[in-house]
Amino acid sequence: MLVYGQGPTRPMVGFTAESAQREAALEARFDQGLNRQNLQQWMKRLSAKPHHVGSPGSKAVAEFIAAQFKSWGFETTIETFYPLFPTPKTRLLEMVAPTRFTAKIEEPAVAGDETSSIKDGNLPVYHAYSTDGDVTGDLVYVNYGLPDDYRKLREMGIDVKGKIVLARYGASWRGIKPKVAAENGAAGCLIYSDPADDGYVQGDVYPQGPYRPAQGAQRGSVMDMPVYPGDPLTPFQAATDKNRAPDPKQAPTVTKIPVMPISYGDAEPLLRALAGPVAPAEWRGGLPLTYHVGPGPAKVHLKLEFDWKLAPTYNVVAKLTGAQQPDQWILRGNHHDGWNFGAADPLSGMISLMEEARMVGELAKSGWRPARTMVYLAWDGEEPALLGSTEWGEAHAAELQRHAVAYVNSDGTSRGFLRVSGAASLELFSAQTARDLTDPQTRVSTLERWQASRKVARRPADFHLEPLGSGSDYTVFQHHLGIPSLNIGFGGESGGGSYHSNYDSYDHYVRFGDPDFQYMLATAQLGGRMMLRLANADWLPLRVEATALAVRGWMNEVVKLADDLRVETRRKNELIRSGAMKLAADPRKPYNVPEPESEVPFLNFAPLQNAVARLELATAAITKVDPAKLTAGQRLALDERLRAAEQKFLRADGLPRRPWFRHVLQAPGFYTGYGVKTLPGIREAIEQRYWKEADEQIAFTAEALIVYAQWLERAAGGE
Amino acid sequence: MLVYGQGPTRPMVGFTAESAQREAALEARFDQGLNRQNLQQWMKRLSAKPHHVGSPGSKAVAEFIAAQFKSWGFETTIETFYPLFPTPKTRLLEMVAPTRFTAKIEEPAVAGDETSSIKDGNLPVYHAYSTDGDVTGDLVYVNYGLPDDYRKLREMGIDVKGKIVLARYGASWRGIKPKVAAENGAAGCLIYSDPADDGYVQGDVYPQGPYRPAQGAQRGSVMDMPVYPGDPLTPFQAATDKNRAPDPKQAPTVTKIPVMPISYGDAEPLLRALAGPVAPAEWRGGLPLTYHVGPGPAKVHLKLEFDWKLAPTYNVVAKLTGAQQPDQWILRGNHHDGWNFGAADPLSGMISLMEEARMVGELAKSGWRPARTMVYLAWDGEEPALLGSTEWGEAHAAELQRHAVAYVNSDGTSRGFLRVSGAASLELFSAQTARDLTDPQTRVSTLERWQASRKVARRPADFHLEPLGSGSDYTVFQHHLGIPSLNIGFGGESGGGSYHSNYDSYDHYVRFGDPDFQYMLATAQLGGRMMLRLANADWLPLRVEATALAVRGWMNEVVKLADDLRVETRRKNELIRSGAMKLAADPRKPYNVPEPESEVPFLNFAPLQNAVARLELATAAITKVDPAKLTAGQRLALDERLRAAEQKFLRADGLPRRPWFRHVLQAPGFYTGYGVKTLPGIREAIEQRYWKEADEQIAFTAEALIVYAQWLERAAGGE
Repeated sequence: MLVYGQGPTRPMVGFTAESAQREAALEARFDQGLNRQNLQQWMKRLSAKPHHVGSPGSKAVAEFIAAQFKSWGFETTIETFYPLFPTPKTRLLEMVAPTRFTAKIEEPAVAGDETSSIKDGNLPVYHAYSTDGDVTGDLVYVNYGLPDDYRKLREMGIDVKGKIVLARYGASWRGIKPKVAAENGAAGCLIYSDPADDGYVQGDVYPQGPYRPAQGAQRGSVMDMPVYPGDPLTPFQAATDKNRAPDPKQAPTVTKIPVMPISYGDAEPLLRALAGPVAPAEWRGGLPLTYHVGPGPAKVHLKLEFDWKLAPTYNVVAKLTGAQQPDQWILRGNHHDGWNFGAADPLSGMISLMEEARMVGELAKSGWRPARTMVYLAWDGEEPALLGSTEWGEAHAAELQRHAVAYVNSDGTSRGFLRVSGAASLELFSAQTARDLTDPQTRVSTLERWQASRKVARRPADFHLEPLGSGSDYTVFQHHLGIPSLNIGFGGESGGGSYHSNYDSYDHYVRFGDPDFQYMLATAQLGGRMMLRLANADWLPLRVEATALAVRGWMNEVVKLADDLRVETRRKNELIRSGAMKLAADPRKPYNVPEPESEVPFLNFAPLQNAVARLELATAAITKVDPAKLTAGQRLALDERLRAAEQKFLRADGLPRRPWFRHVLQAPGFYTGYGVKTLPGIREAIEQRYWKEADEQIAFTAEALIVYAQWLERAAGGE
Repeated sequence: MLVYGQGPTRPMVGFTAESAQREAALEARFDQGLNRQNLQQWMKRLSAKPHHVGSPGSKAVAEFIAAQFKSWGFETTIETFYPLFPTPKTRLLEMVAPTRFTAKIEEPAVAGDETSSIKDGNLPVYHAYSTDGDVTGDLVYVNYGLPDDYRKLREMGIDVKGKIVLARYGASWRGIKPKVAAENGAAGCLIYSDPADDGYVQGDVYPQGPYRPAQGAQRGSVMDMPVYPGDPLTPFQAATDKNRAPDPKQAPTVTKIPVMPISYGDAEPLLRALAGPVAPAEWRGGLPLTYHVGPGPAKVHLKLEFDWKLAPTYNVVAKLTGAQQPDQWILRGNHHDGWNFGAADPLSGMISLMEEARMVGELAKSGWRPARTMVYLAWDGEEPALLGSTEWGEAHAAELQRHAVAYVNSDGTSRGFLRVSGAASLELFSAQTARDLTDPQTRVSTLERWQASRKVARRPADFHLEPLGSGSDYTVFQHHLGIPSLNIGFGGESGGGSYHSNYDSYDHYVRFGDPDFQYMLATAQLGGRMMLRLANADWLPLRVEATALAVRGWMNEVVKLADDLRVETRRKNELIRSGAMKLAADPRKPYNVPEPESEVPFLNFAPLQNAVARLELATAAITKVDPAKLTAGQRLALDERLRAAEQKFLRADGLPRRPWFRHVLQAPGFYTGYGVKTLPGIREAIEQRYWKEADEQIAFTAEALIVYAQWLERAAGGE
């Protein structure tokens, strides 16, 4: 693992050996000043009341954070935007046949959880950006509600047109489920947390253990964010006008059909009332019943009305201006809004960031100054649709692209293993940071512990950054603006099912999330190290040869995807045409043989292969340049090349059917939501069997790679 | 698929073209005479009362069957043996802490199932050949109770010594569970049917659907049958002495600790009362609770006492003497005893066999005579330990080895796909039989439908026989006597959970098993075709080149097994020694790093490789002989070579630690029970890490293959 510099010298990318020593000493001072009591006290304070976007609680939290930043010496403002944000007026779900049952859609107070009894200012169980609706129909259970599930239903002879579908949480981001349900003609959609995925099957339920109890439900956004996040009425632009008359009908990312989350307590009577075929084995969850698909005889009535308002969205922006390169900005953010009390999500990350920033302020007060400008950001409105970060990113797009070096995001954090994902150019930087940070439980480096877990899981233990999909505030930076971004934190050992529920509370977090705040402290250390290194480095620690390596891997994947799909299509069509599918089916059960699918043509990958070859040469050339040997001016020029390089991966037209997403290397999946798709134009065209588009997207992607390579070639050439 | 002769000529192995036409005509007559009404009436009659071994019902069933055979023209006798067979006197299971609960261990009557209310003569829920015992201890949940599960428990810091283990049914034959529990020091064992494997997760429960209801339980044998089946007091010998004083202490195959089956209704309170670590994800079943491992605080008291008696075991033996080769015997059997009403198991197969035999008798009455002697066998006492067939096989070992050509077994049968497994020398014979039989639901050949199901499941669709493990009456013939055996039937579309319960009834079977008896009819056709072909063929339809092909495949498997295990051992030991296992574990949970395991040496496979090469040459040479061109005398000599060949795979010493199992090519697994192990001496030595034994067994197996090859070489050479 020489590349990470595990030897005695512990090199730091971006630093000379001498500077690295100075930096290490600074980081040691930083560590020593961190204070766990702050973490505990702020957690208790900020999670005491609901603080979702538009609420008095959120405003109070933003103002508290801003005041803190000011007191630590940051130049601090609150930037407010006014995006559309619906809250529920009417929520009704009742089964009207074969028996009557009214869903509770309510999370009761539980013993030992102080805030769970607070009802004042609480956001009830609902999905933000569901459309209004009043629908009644037979119920159909659709498993996770993904396109393949509907294909399976068609094979079983079941049509969801005009029906209300019951999907379970999991296997995709929740917003995909109403979107696919609507594409299939459903009139309404319910999403419940099955105990197999999120409940007693996983472990003891709250308050006995951390897992989701019978009446626990998962709030969340269902906006079509894979098209664009942020205010649905102002894509590409900041929602600055608070006097608009908001019309949800003008919002293409609002769902087409009404949708609501329910608990497994509420879902159980509905599932029990379904008849029809028994659900396929892999569709069955953990409730004590036989899962049937329907349709009916369960018939449900779903009525939803929302208050469609503009919600003031308070972003806290806190700057510490760089002493040497004030125009190079290092960004660090976490959201501050929660669905209600939001202890784990977002406060565990937000408060870690605060303690990190406090110590940065302390260091600055003691005489140190960052070379580059550090910007700390506390976002509002992340939960409904990444509102705060997206509007801010759109508002400041041009200057961000001119100045931003990198954006380091965090969100919830908890006990466990290092979790870093992001742009490949920050891979070595991230690995070295992880190398230099001690895991609080085992006292080995966080990198070593991460590697141990990978080895034991029989996965590659070389450190590589997984690319970013979506699900937090890095989205506008990485995918829309082309700013190399990271998402950081810890997790994997706390378990639990408080996500987006009323039980995401102080009491839950201190029992199960990070009982002694040691991983919040580690998150502050991780974020702090990254910020200090990015701000102090002698030259920018971006290593683009890792990007080229990643791109080659993704190219190999999409080539294989097409090849595999070609073989599989031919095989399946043969099974259909030969009658084998029909013969293998049980004649006593309804079964529709699927239609043969279009054969997969051979695609012209040559432009991509040539572009990747050039990309490799260009990144190899620039890697050979030793910045230590450059003049200050040359070094600055090189830094500027590297800083802006990632933006060359943006295409002005963006991705098909979603121009806001402009990065050719990765995007959240159109049918996965949070899950990343690499080379998304190509990959999704193949997956969706758009053959012409696949060839086009290969060419478009190749063009972007060439532009990127040319940009670097000029730098390596000394321009 | 030319090999199966799917062309217009439809050749039959063992027949000249002319004889094949005559045979096809005979089979058409056979088919036409079959009568579904008989199936329905006999099913109703024979399943009306409990008819387990030793019961008046079993005697009545045997006498009825014998009378039928006689009336159809068979020379019929009842051969009676007297093996040890325990029935329960005391069955008590109670939880004594932390709360009190007494298990019901009782299957209640259900609506619409006429026999479920019969209590007279019923065998209650119990495990045959459990030892007597009265034990109290903390409960531990051990998943399926296999060696790997105990390894996992040790890693979790849990010792089962002196405790009572609760295992779920599945993943092995049930008798493995108390054996492994005792090896690990447990004091008692409970085995329950988890609804994830056998209950509402699978489908609607009885009587609404076919699946196992909350109080349904699975009776069964727990005798250590992988050591030897049959009377535990008389291995290798027939249990003919009815005046012995049976002492279960003298029976090595009786369990070492008391064991009892329970329903999931009875298991649920026990599982709910367990604390300790949450069970690993793959250990969790379908009950609505968090599965904990324990030990305790649930403490249970298990008390079992049995009546250890000799039970008269009535085998019906019915002969139709061959007109040309009376000394060549074709055997066909199915057991007639059930746990109670035994409609599916065994009557669906038994009655199919009866209707088959009736039509054979009809054909004989109308003037046809088989060339060889046909022997129909209705076994008693299969359920507890293959008692009837094993004792009969042991009683007649010498003459069977002198005369038997093949044994065709059936057991339960139901709606669905062809199921044939057995000796590879009968592979082409079986494929052709399947080719010539029409599937009642789809009207294509049963072979074609089977192939369709394999293709759709993306499995090889070439017809190969899976080798036999154990679980029915072929065991003594294939594994102990070396008589090529088949196990035949249909299934896979009826589903259900009546297995070994009181609900294996007429009402259950006609609703869910084979509603219009068409697959019982198909089973009669399948068995009938096989018997008529084996009895009528111009020469024996045994094709040993398939055996050689199978052996080469198994050899490749065991070589790969050792290689894979070597790599895996080294990898795992490295993870242990480097500390990665410890680092990857959650420090807040008890965790013992496992001990490194012995490194896997390179084994000397050369003797086996040489033997297989010779086997291939020998079988290829004999395949080139065209029996049609031989004189009658030469043909008889060749037939005798082929008939006795399979016996050459027997080793006098048998397998390590279980000399009764003598076949080197396959055996039921020592730790799987029913599941087959091919090249078992070698494979199990590798799996158990007995490296010296592995080398020995390679040599022993090679020797047997050489003996077999030599035997054939003499035939091909014209001896």
